[in-house]
Order: sequence, then structure tokens, then C-alpha cells
Amino acid sequence: MKKVYNPPMESWENLLQRPVQAFSEVEAVAREVFEAVRRDGDTAIGNYTRKFDGVEQETLELSESEILNAGKEVPIALRKAIQTAKENIEKFHRAQRTGRITVETSPGVQCWQEKRPIDKVGLYIPGGTAPLFSTILMLAIPASIAGCREVVLCSPPGKEGQLHPAIIYTAHLCGIRRIFKVGGIQAIAGMTFGTQSIPRVFKIFGPGNQYVTVAKQLATTFGVAIDMPAGPSELLVAADHTADPEFVASDLLSQAEHGTDSQVVLVTTRPELMDQVEAALERQLDLLPRKAIAQKAIDNSKLICVPDDDTAIELINQYGPEHYIICCENEAYYLENTRNAGSVFVGNYTPESAGDYASGTNHTLPTNGYARQYSGVTLDSFMKSISFQKITAQGILQLGPTIEVMAEAEGLQAHKNAVSLRLEHLRSGL
Amino acid sequence: MKKVYNPPMESWENLLQRPVQAFSEVEAVAREVFEAVRRDGDTAIGNYTRKFDGVEQETLELSESEILNAGKEVPIALRKAIQTAKENIEKFHRAQRTGRITVETSPGVQCWQEKRPIDKVGLYIPGGTAPLFSTILMLAIPASIAGCREVVLCSPPGKEGQLHPAIIYTAHLCGIRRIFKVGGIQAIAGMTFGTQSIPRVFKIFGPGNQYVTVAKQLATTFGVAIDMPAGPSELLVAADHTADPEFVASDLLSQAEHGTDSQVVLVTTRPELMDQVEAALERQLDLLPRKAIAQKAIDNSKLICVPDDDTAIELINQYGPEHYIICCENEAYYLENTRNAGSVFVGNYTPESAGDYASGTNHTLPTNGYARQYSGVTLDSFMKSISFQKITAQGILQLGPTIEVMAEAEGLQAHKNAVSLRLEHLRSGL
Repeated sequence: MKKVYNPPMESWENLLQRPVQAFSEVEAVAREVFEAVRRDGDTAIGNYTRKFDGVEQETLELSESEILNAGKEVPIALRKAIQTAKENIEKFHRAQRTGRITVETSPGVQCWQEKRPIDKVGLYIPGGTAPLFSTILMLAIPASIAGCREVVLCSPPGKEGQLHPAIIYTAHLCGIRRIFKVGGIQAIAGMTFGTQSIPRVFKIFGPGNQYVTVAKQLATTFGVAIDMPAGPSELLVAADHTADPEFVASDLLSQAEHGTDSQVVLVTTRPELMDQVEAALERQLDLLPRKAIAQKAIDNSKLICVPDDDTAIELINQYGPEHYIICCENEAYYLENTRNAGSVFVGNYTPESAGDYASGTNHTLPTNGYARQYSGVTLDSFMKSISFQKITAQGILQLGPTIEVMAEAEGLQAHKNAVSLRLEHLRSGL
Repeated sequence: MKKVYNPPMESWENLLQRPVQAFSEVEAVAREVFEAVRRDGDTAIGNYTRKFDGVEQETLELSESEILNAGKEVPIALRKAIQTAKENIEKFHRAQRTGRITVETSPGVQCWQEKRPIDKVGLYIPGGTAPLFSTILMLAIPASIAGCREVVLCSPPGKEGQLHPAIIYTAHLCGIRRIFKVGGIQAIAGMTFGTQSIPRVFKIFGPGNQYVTVAKQLATTFGVAIDMPAGPSELLVAADHTADPEFVASDLLSQAEHGTDSQVVLVTTRPELMDQVEAALERQLDLLPRKAIAQKAIDNSKLICVPDDDTAIELINQYGPEHYIICCENEAYYLENTRNAGSVFVGNYTPESAGDYASGTNHTLPTNGYARQYSGVTLDSFMKSISFQKITAQGILQLGPTIEVMAEAEGLQAHKNAVSLRLEHLRSGL
């Protein structure tokens, strides 16, 4: 691990640089798949599933009985855990509901704002070595609370052409009825254009490898929205003498095991903590099954010592971490002054994994510095806000002249005329 | 104008097709400008301003005295109108502030959500024949209420290298201190990368021609967010016998004068209204200074008669209009069942121009069908929401086992370990 002491501000940008991702090769493949899926629908989906996943499929969609029976294959302890997590995630996301906002801005001028669900959304759940059922909870629960009419789930089939029972069980538990055994670029293309089996959606959510990331970007050029741009996962821990070095090391490792390009950073005002964390980290690392992955991520990581809390905060805000643990005596100062972060974990007993799974917050978060301008997934990600207004005769009589002056000054006579006509009509009737 | 009676549902997609925009030629230009601005900063900005705008500039940024003096050149009636509009827009956007949301999802597990401003935002205000000061109100006011630290405005210089006084006056009134006489692709590139004079920003807002639209799309590939994808402006009016045909015609024309590619649509259950609106429209069109533009837009527009309100609603929701006027007896039905729209105007005395200028709602809205999945600009567009959590010893003792089971099932042992370590520590201390 790289230890850095009191780095000058000019060096921060280099110091905090994220692993670079190169996408240009993937782009050509993605364009080809998109064109084929747009043209040939399910046939193209089948071809690419054969080619990329090595699987031959008769049907893309799970049947009702496949969905209903999956639960039996999920251990009861896991089912209970998923249900507990679901309840917490529901509580936190239900609390995010906002009512209608109404303001009479001038006499007779009533303006209001309401949020309405996005009708059709698509959820992408990656395959790979382990079933990421937790991501289904994070996406399907707010979609359901928002009231989205159609929720479609795509996930790549395993070698035997099946989805993991925990994926199917969790999707069903969250009310998803349309589940497709389709992954990668072809899944995103399918949800973008619609095929004979896969419905077209208006917004696509979910993580994925570089192929999925590029495909989601490409989808936006065809009129589909996406949750956010993706990048490798990351964690920054701000800690001092009040932090337990063993806990800090375990949190850094939990992030590092995600992938070799994960980034973990410790920022502290206490140089001795860096040594303690490093020692704990080496001990814990040895016991991990994903040691090789975590080791590589740890090699790229930094332990940074700064002179004071002010400097720490500036550095953290410049970085804008996706996950951010605060374990400092001056906790309130850090909480108040943090401007850029995805999700914040406070104190010794708040591991990042709590938010990854079960505390209730969402784990779909902005990485790669995007916390400066993007929110993580919230209930609002599944809705859009619409503004409304209703003006009375008295209201337009009073506000109309203001509109006329402004429209005329912008050279938009028909805009003015729409008001003038109404004013003439009302004045002649007085 | 094209009149259509009871079109079958299969024909809607074709019937409601928007004017197609082709961007591929512009893309190459945009890439070239982006590369040059990234490499050469202000020099490149100067070169392209000379080339595209025909203007030679000594400085890009307005001086303080230029900003302070602009107001004198703005007629007092216009200044008053702008101030009235500003007050209404402030009222409506201030009401959109949301407090912290806190939930104890399980005993000892405290989760909360807070919104914090985006530190640096850039506003783009198009030039052209008329000064679009109203768009400054729509962007700078929520930026200020949100608490954005740095707000940068770019607008293309006129032939004499100046900005219109109304632009400068309005920007100053809204608290903007950094105003640049730079337009087009080079402005977007400047705010994306930062130059010697222009600060780099995290999110770019504002309308523009196809060059600006393509440049904003390109900016997103360099880590900058944008307000929303852009398209030609559009209005759909749903009206029946309770609507005044003269008012309806004036509203359709106010949208049509924006550009030859604007789209206006009337949906009604009353065939006789179509004839009345058409007649009124022809009379009013003759008196407009921008008649040539409006005429072309009107030529592409449609008057559509549907058998009943249900059909009207389905058609409107499929279209997802940017601007949407409801002037129907069954107003409540339309309001309740509209799922996709940018901004809704209700009743005979609520012209679209009210929302364009002064009623308080925002006029930066999703076009091109994006109302299905995007909001218009709101206060939230200038903020991001951050989630927080703090767990007590009791809290992790209770929730910890759930996290352990889930992390293990996803094959993420280090995630589990971060919890197990804490549980062991706490249990051994009991």
C-alpha cells in the first residue's frame, strides 16, 4: 500500500486518480449488437447469447412455474435474511415519497409539482461467480414503491442456461413478473428497442461489466435513460484515534474484494493509524478466499496522512467517494462539511456492508467522482416530476402585462399574443 | 394543417413522430473543438469564436463594471417585469426544498437522506436574434436557492462582440458574477475542461441549437452531467367545447413561432373544434412577424379527433408532450390520468407563455418524448442526494447476522468479515 504524508494540494488530482477504463474496443461490438437486435429481435438475442454466453435457449423468458418454484431451492436462512433486508429497504425508500407541492405564486396563479412513476423500467442484474440478489432488492423495491407499471429484469444465464434460484426468488418477492435469461450488451439492446419477447423500457438500471456499461451509454443515444454512468467501486475511510484499526482494515478489504480495479483510500490526521491499519490489513487479507483480487486492489490503494480535519475535508470533497466511512472524534464536522459523496457510514459499528445489504439505504451509487453531480438511486430515480399551473381570469389580468413585456423583449410576438387575446377578451367583458 | 379523424392505435406512433434531427455531421466538428479546447484552452476558444461567430475578442469574461452598468440600458418596464417573474419563480422553486429524511429502519440502525448542492454549475444561454434572458431566470434562480458555490454563464457574443444588456442585467440580478462571451461548442468544451479563464463545472444546463446539443452530449463522455437531452420544442393541446378556439389557436402559434421544427398538436373529441381552431389560426398567423417560421411548423402539425377522453389520454401519454394544455370539461380526469408530460397548463386563462416567463414554473422541459422518463429542471436538478447511516452496537448485533448470511451467499467473504469482526468484538465484551 502506498503511504503518503501531507501531500501538497497540487498533487491531489494525480494522487486520487481513479483506475482508467478504456472502452473504445467494446464500443464497436456494442454498436454491432445494437444494430442486430434492432433489426432481428429475438433471433439476434439468441445468436449473441450462444456466442457470448455459450448457451442455447428455447425461451428467453421464465415461465410462471419457474418463478414460483425457485424459492424452494433457496435456504430458509437466506430467505429470512432477504426478507429482513427487504423490510428495511422498503422503510427507507417509502419515507422518500414526496407529496404535491402547491404554491400560489401571485393572486390567481396556482402552480404545483407532482411526481409520477416512469411507466416502464428495466433492471439489469449481472451474472458471474455469485448471484447478486441484493441489487434486485435495491432496484425492484423503489420501482414498486414508485408505482412503475412494468418492471422487466434481465440477467445472463449460467452455463446450464439457468438463473440462480436466489435471483428468481428475490425478483418474485419484489413483485417482478417478467424475468429474462438474457445478459450483456444484447440484454441492454433488447430493453432499448424491444423484441418479440422483451418489452421496450424507458429507463434502464443496474450495474455490469464494461460491456454493459458501454451498452447503457449507447442506449442513451436511442432515447432511453439510465440510472447513472458506472465505474469501478470505491471506498474512502476518514478515521482517527477513535477508530478501531481492525474494523477499518476489514472495511477497506470488503471494498477491495469487489475487483482488481476497486479503489480504497484511508485519510487520517494520525500517522500511527496508517501503520496499525496496514498491519491489520495484511493479517486479514491472508484469510480471504478472494485474496488475489483484494491484493491487487490494495496495491493500488493509498493511506494518506493530512495535517488537520480541514485539509481532510477538502481532499475528500475533491475526490467525491462513492462509499465514505467517517470514524472520527470530530464526526459532526465531517458530516456537516462533506459536499460530495454517494453514501456515508458513521462510526465504528457501521460497516459498509450494512448499506450494501440490509440497513435500508441504496447501494446503487455514483462512482468515479460522479458523486460531485449525481445522486445514487433513490425513489425519485423511478419517477419524474411534472409541473402544473392554473390561472384564473383575475390572475391573468394581473400577471399578463408582465408576460407581454418579456415576450416582446425576446422577440416572440405570438407568445405575447396568446396573453393579449385573453386580456382583450376579459377587459371587453368587464 | 393535417386533420386526422379517429386514427387507429397502430397508427399513433407514425402519426405522432417528431421531426428527425440528424447530428452525425456536427459530431466530427464537436470532437475537433473539444480536443482543441482541452489542449489549447483560451487560445482555442478565441480561434473558434473568430471562426464561428466572426468576432475578435480581447477578453472572454465580462468585467465587474460591465456587469454593473448593463442595467442602465434595460428599459425600466422590462426590468420591472423581470423582477416580477423572478419573485414568482423564486417562490415556486423555494417551495421545492426538501428537508432531511430520517428513518430508524431497525432498532439502532439510523438511516437518513440529505440533499446538497452541486458545487459548480454552468449555464448556457443561446444568442441569436433575441436575448433569452428568461432562461437565465429559469436556471440561475434554482442554482442560487440550491446553494451552488460557483455559477458560470456562457453566451455567444453578438456581431459587435457584446452580450445584450438584458442578458447581463438578468444574470447579475440572479447573483451570477462570472459571465463569459463565449458560445456554441467552444463554450460547452470550455466549461467541460476548464481553460485559463473559464472554470470547469460539474453540470451544464441550458438550451441551444444542434451544435450545442451535440456538444452537451459529448460533454457527458468527459464526466460532466447535463440537465437533459434536447430536442425541438412542442405543445399538445387537449380541448373540447369548453375551450375558446381563438385562445387555442394563439397557444398553438406561440409554440410554432419557436422554429420550423417545432411541433404542435391538438387532440379533441369535438370535430367542430378542429375547424374553428384552424380558421382562427389562419387569421392570427397573418399578423405575426415570425409568420414564415410559424407557418412551416404549422404545416407539420396535426389536429386529431378521437372518440372519447380515454382514447385522448392514451394518445397523450404515448406522445409525452413537453408542454400540455388541458382545456376540457372533464379537467380532473385529464389531470389525474396524465402520466407523461413536462409542464401542464389548465384552463382557458393559462396560456403556455405564462409558464415560459412569469408564473413561477420552470420552462426547461423534456422534449422529444423524454417526458416519459425525465423531469424538467427543478430545484433538485442543482443538487444531489446523499444517504447516511449510523448503527449502534445493539443495532449491528441485531442486524449483523442478516448481513453475514447475504454476503456469504453472494460469495463476498470480506463483506461478511467486516461484520463478523465487529460482532465478535462486541460479544466478547458482553
